[in-house]
Amino acid sequence: MENKWNFQGNGELKLVPAPRIRGVLSMIMQNLNKDDQRTTIPLGIGDPSAFPCFRTSISAEDAIVESVRSGKFNCYSPSIGILPARRAIADYLSNDLPYKLSPDDVYVTSGCTHAIEMVLTAISRSSPVANILLPRPGFTFYDTRAAYSNLEVRRYDLLPEKGWEVDLEALEALADEYTVAMVIINPGNPCGSVYTSQHLKKIAETARKLGILVIADEVYNHLTFGSTPFVPMGTFGSIVPVLTLGSISKRWIVPGWRLGWIAICDPNAILQNSGIIKSITGCLEVSSDAPTFIQAAIPQIIEHTKEDFFLKIVEMLRGAAVICFDKLNEIPCITCPSKPEGSMFVMAKLNLSLLDEISDDVEFSLKLAKEESVIVLPGMAVGLKNWLRITFACDHSSLEDGLGRIKGFCERHAKKK
Amino acid sequence: MENKWNFQGNGELKLVPAPRIRGVLSMIMQNLNKDDQRTTIPLGIGDPSAFPCFRTSISAEDAIVESVRSGKFNCYSPSIGILPARRAIADYLSNDLPYKLSPDDVYVTSGCTHAIEMVLTAISRSSPVANILLPRPGFTFYDTRAAYSNLEVRRYDLLPEKGWEVDLEALEALADEYTVAMVIINPGNPCGSVYTSQHLKKIAETARKLGILVIADEVYNHLTFGSTPFVPMGTFGSIVPVLTLGSISKRWIVPGWRLGWIAICDPNAILQNSGIIKSITGCLEVSSDAPTFIQAAIPQIIEHTKEDFFLKIVEMLRGAAVICFDKLNEIPCITCPSKPEGSMFVMAKLNLSLLDEISDDVEFSLKLAKEESVIVLPGMAVGLKNWLRITFACDHSSLEDGLGRIKGFCERHAKKK
Ligand SMILES: Cc1ncc(COP(=O)(O)O)c(C=O)c1O
Ligand SMILES: Cc1ncc(COP(=O)(O)O)c(C=O)c1O
Repeated sequence: MENKWNFQGNGELKLVPAPRIRGVLSMIMQNLNKDDQRTTIPLGIGDPSAFPCFRTSISAEDAIVESVRSGKFNCYSPSIGILPARRAIADYLSNDLPYKLSPDDVYVTSGCTHAIEMVLTAISRSSPVANILLPRPGFTFYDTRAAYSNLEVRRYDLLPEKGWEVDLEALEALADEYTVAMVIINPGNPCGSVYTSQHLKKIAETARKLGILVIADEVYNHLTFGSTPFVPMGTFGSIVPVLTLGSISKRWIVPGWRLGWIAICDPNAILQNSGIIKSITGCLEVSSDAPTFIQAAIPQIIEHTKEDFFLKIVEMLRGAAVICFDKLNEIPCITCPSKPEGSMFVMAKLNLSLLDEISDDVEFSLKLAKEESVIVLPGMAVGLKNWLRITFACDHSSLEDGLGRIKGFCERHAKKK
Repeated sequence: MENKWNFQGNGELKLVPAPRIRGVLSMIMQNLNKDDQRTTIPLGIGDPSAFPCFRTSISAEDAIVESVRSGKFNCYSPSIGILPARRAIADYLSNDLPYKLSPDDVYVTSGCTHAIEMVLTAISRSSPVANILLPRPGFTFYDTRAAYSNLEVRRYDLLPEKGWEVDLEALEALADEYTVAMVIINPGNPCGSVYTSQHLKKIAETARKLGILVIADEVYNHLTFGSTPFVPMGTFGSIVPVLTLGSISKRWIVPGWRLGWIAICDPNAILQNSGIIKSITGCLEVSSDAPTFIQAAIPQIIEHTKEDFFLKIVEMLRGAAVICFDKLNEIPCITCPSKPEGSMFVMAKLNLSLLDEISDDVEFSLKLAKEESVIVLPGMAVGLKNWLRITFACDHSSLEDGLGRIKGFCERHAKKK
């Protein structure tokens, strides 16, 4: 028989309709100039863990060490997670809710990435003709995973002039009888937005009217430093059932620990006997779990991390956001429509007509990497062409250095009058 | 609009065509009698980590602790794994191979479970009409994941009277032009078999003739204690390309650590430009990674674990296998066709005609749990009805206790002449 070792299909093409952010960033990074003596300034990814000032809390490390040293958590975990972890996460989230979550409402995942994978797979398996509504700009991993599951996606706009709020009218017009869920990301990636309680309530009411679920990605929960406090979407769980996705990646600055969750915020138990929960637990059963000893450390990580640690991180982000916003707006060809109030990012619009020989956001990012050793994410990777997503989660001096280099780059490439 | 919160579909039914082993075990465990004062003897699952004598090596724990304490591995990992981990795994596997793997041949996964998921998904995405050949009895997670990806499965038999070798003639007859791969599990779950070098070579030759890949699940590598030494399938990688799947779960007794790999054993680089590798890396890109600090501990876990530790574990399993085989064969209604030589399991055939009011393996296991607080896995969960899969990976006294209870149970239920 002829051998079939060549697998003629191009598996990867079918797989990655929307590029994953890290794929785009590694393309940009390949353009770095090795001869540049300056350190590279990474303003591309939401992972400041390499900066000593963003080191995680010592209590979180202690919790892991104690868990491993106990020798009690080398065993397999149940597919939904171990009870102490589920209970600790339920209590942690309940602190900000008008009702109490039970451990049964929580499923432990390998980071929020895995939570997104499980929820989108579960939706596509429950209803093969379903579609979901995703924000633009957004976190394109949703698009990638949806395509992977043949789940139709419709994009609703966020309004830059309104602090990147959801365009609810347009959203309503997009939905049809097969629309089953909408995704919001709050605090926002890539926009740095934080939604008010009023706006969240309106989102809940719209979703209720449409009869759809809200998937609330709150991986940046509590990373807010503007005038709007963080309010979880689950607050409005009695208006509409909410699936809250989160992780310890961002607030504890440990994205490499891969510990996240799905929390069913549904005080009226509307979803209790629905297919979606069964479908999520079914997906978890055929998927690998978060390491048991990391799960076992969660109660201690949550309880023992001091308020000081969180305050320090938020202060650092607050300062960085101001530096970033102010410095960017000094650059003629760049506009940030609103000051970031949360998460680790700001969206900056390029005015290409002021630049010479730079045709789009990707070319801007590639040349910036080559000439200035600064990494930023082209907006196309988050669904907005000719914008940039810039991370300010780094130490202030690196940030100022990086922004200075961006300014120099833009000046050098400015169109001569 | 009518709400769509009820997700009428039964997601979970579509998901789980073959029950996952832990699902079956939890059903059996629900039948335990809470009033039984005796401790429950867990002979159902391949996870002895709860027994103090099976505690992992102190060097492995040290490696994790140092990795966390360094603060250097809180960051995201590349989707294929970090280089030091890939290099350490490549070197580790190369020790047993006639050629050297490079770090580029290795992909880090969240345990062997995740490796299976990635490889089967990659195959189904590369060639939508493909089918694969799976052993019966086998590890039904393969069936589950294949069904999940709409990948057709054909089952070839293992021959109990030949030490559970592959029935190669029947296997050839099963394959057609759409068959792209066969799976072997060596050392064997659920059979405790260890294949000779000669048999592995014949498998390679058959696969080459059929033009198919070999997926070699070697999660029990080096857990052998009979007369046949462990030989990795990759030894025959120059005859046929082999994808070797493995993890630290079993040899280090840390299934909860979730660290595994896919190694491309293909010294002639036949797969280099094939779709399958691209498809695997594409799948890894849209999936969550193993925690970075656990990956970072891998070089030290592999290098610093003393031979003593492995010897002790293998000695314990050797003794347990003898106890298990001898005691089971004393029971009239149970036959073990061959003494286990590797892994942690033995298959035992039930002679139901000697038993009263026990109609099948599931009823046997349920009643055994209720009456004797002993958990064993009904054979149906591994594809062989009216057999049992019994784990001997537990301390010897618990094992003897458990086997004694099984004997008592069988005597009590023996048909009166
Ligand atoms: C909006 C959003 N959701 C989810 C994730 C993934 O988070 P995790 O690290 O917990 O997988 C990210 C990571 O950047 C994110 O920005
Ligand atoms: C044959 C086989 N493959 C894979 C696995 C999964 O291993 P891991 O714990 O590395 O995910 C098991 C676990 O029991 C197994 O028996």
